[in-house]
Amino acid sequence: MNEFDYIEKYFKPLTNEVARNLSDDAAVFKQRSKYDLVVSTDTLAEGIHFFGNENPKDIAKKSLRVNLSDMAAMGAKPIFYNLSISIPKNKVKYFLPKFAKGLDEDQELFGLKLIGGDLTSSLQNINITITIFGETLNKKSISRGGAKLGDLLFVSGVLGLSKIGLDNFKTKLKGFSVAKNKYLFPEPRVDLGLSLNKIANSMIDISDGLVQDASHLAKNSNLSIVLDAEKIPLPLSINLKKDILLNAALYGGDDYELLFSCKPTYENSLKKVSLEQNIKLTRIGFFQKFKKEHILFQNQHQFYQNKSYSHF
Amino acid sequence: MNEFDYIEKYFKPLTNEVARNLSDDAAVFKQRSKYDLVVSTDTLAEGIHFFGNENPKDIAKKSLRVNLSDMAAMGAKPIFYNLSISIPKNKVKYFLPKFAKGLDEDQELFGLKLIGGDLTSSLQNINITITIFGETLNKKSISRGGAKLGDLLFVSGVLGLSKIGLDNFKTKLKGFSVAKNKYLFPEPRVDLGLSLNKIANSMIDISDGLVQDASHLAKNSNLSIVLDAEKIPLPLSINLKKDILLNAALYGGDDYELLFSCKPTYENSLKKVSLEQNIKLTRIGFFQKFKKEHILFQNQHQFYQNKSYSHF
Repeated sequence: MNEFDYIEKYFKPLTNEVARNLSDDAAVFKQRSKYDLVVSTDTLAEGIHFFGNENPKDIAKKSLRVNLSDMAAMGAKPIFYNLSISIPKNKVKYFLPKFAKGLDEDQELFGLKLIGGDLTSSLQNINITITIFGETLNKKSISRGGAKLGDLLFVSGVLGLSKIGLDNFKTKLKGFSVAKNKYLFPEPRVDLGLSLNKIANSMIDISDGLVQDASHLAKNSNLSIVLDAEKIPLPLSINLKKDILLNAALYGGDDYELLFSCKPTYENSLKKVSLEQNIKLTRIGFFQKFKKEHILFQNQHQFYQNKSYSHF
Repeated sequence: MNEFDYIEKYFKPLTNEVARNLSDDAAVFKQRSKYDLVVSTDTLAEGIHFFGNENPKDIAKKSLRVNLSDMAAMGAKPIFYNLSISIPKNKVKYFLPKFAKGLDEDQELFGLKLIGGDLTSSLQNINITITIFGETLNKKSISRGGAKLGDLLFVSGVLGLSKIGLDNFKTKLKGFSVAKNKYLFPEPRVDLGLSLNKIANSMIDISDGLVQDASHLAKNSNLSIVLDAEKIPLPLSINLKKDILLNAALYGGDDYELLFSCKPTYENSLKKVSLEQNIKLTRIGFFQKFKKEHILFQNQHQFYQNKSYSHF
């Protein structure tokens, strides 16, 4: 099979009419003037973002979900995506059918379609890039820079699970399966993002760790965030010391929870959203005038040290 | 420098307001209902699409130009692009400044802006994915499937140059520099594509070789193409045997010339376009009812054998 055969067999079934059967030079769709288009790209590189020996289905889901999480963070509804894979010749036959199956399952779950992409060989490692497209009503996407003085800072779910899953990936101890699953399958908070569209002033998904991502909100809003480390929701059911859990929450990446600001008057609306969606929402800080650092800790928390992930 | 510093220093200057300073989770723009959006993605993998020891400026231009060529093939006006690079840690410091410079020069030349992307490390090789966005008026993009019975087949420029440049990359013989340059710097026919928007019924850019790309037009239009090998425009100034030139034209990739069909009545309009744009346009065949093969040769040309590039 050459690349055209692979595309025909495994990717064409994932498309809609925008993709023109993946047999044209580009995808084409009519623009809708009531809506903004929201576009984001995330790459997963073998050996960096995934081990390489996972089930290709899981790698597919992770690739799509990290991108879906960006749509959630914008309060946007995902509509379609395109996909580029570079893969060594000796892996393609095994990898692609399972990879496409994973995409298929998650497309169904999250309601979006493939519209195009590229399939090429590579020398050594697999590289996957997805560009995702979403929509909001005009000017209704949520930036990182909209937080106001006095806003409260909230986070969804519990933090640190994914980092704990990664650090304990080979353990067979009971209680770690939730964490390992969270590492493998991020849960993009797409519906939550949509519900927060009218509530949040600023929003980001936590992919690089709470401290780093919170600092993006603070920096873009020209404010400081005061974090209350005692309030950070931790996975306390896991049998690890609290300072390990807290460090994972503060600096571990890949949580893909939503971190957002809103006016104090919205606290009751948030309780409703939390109940409706069955997702924990926790107040973990507030915004104040910028003072030296973008992230400050209530009571000068001892764990504060910048050790978030950096690629270079 | 971490990835945020690199992005801030080298990529932010390439953006417009759609990119939101590259400091948000996504790019956002208002849709315009009179226009269709045309989206395409091409990846360049080190060791597959480029050697790796070229000047990063040249690699940047090639990455952007292969994508621009897809816009040309749709008759679309390129407006912006996003970019993902995965690169080994030890190469980033040298590579990125030059790479960004190359993008900057070509953005200027072709009139488009960067709106977002991703920068990650990789284990071994550089991998570059660009998703390009263009526009046409509603329903005015040109597909591969619109050729009609009796249409003529035209091609721009001369064919085979890029393959000859690649095969003779290390020669110091005079006369090969045009070919080597064509391999390094594809010339996307963006303005020509726009001029052909009202003339061509179907169109493709030649990236995989004339025979393979012509077969896409024929297949998608449910017709056969009869090619006149004697008419194919060859780079005759290069001191190589004619059969080598012809083989390069038929099966060599990376020419990025436009191959298109139009009604015979448009031949005069094409002469005008050719003069205006100073680009050679040559009639090399016609479309007939499908008969056994999608590509037929006038006089059963001896060079016909399928050996186009395949990734797998």
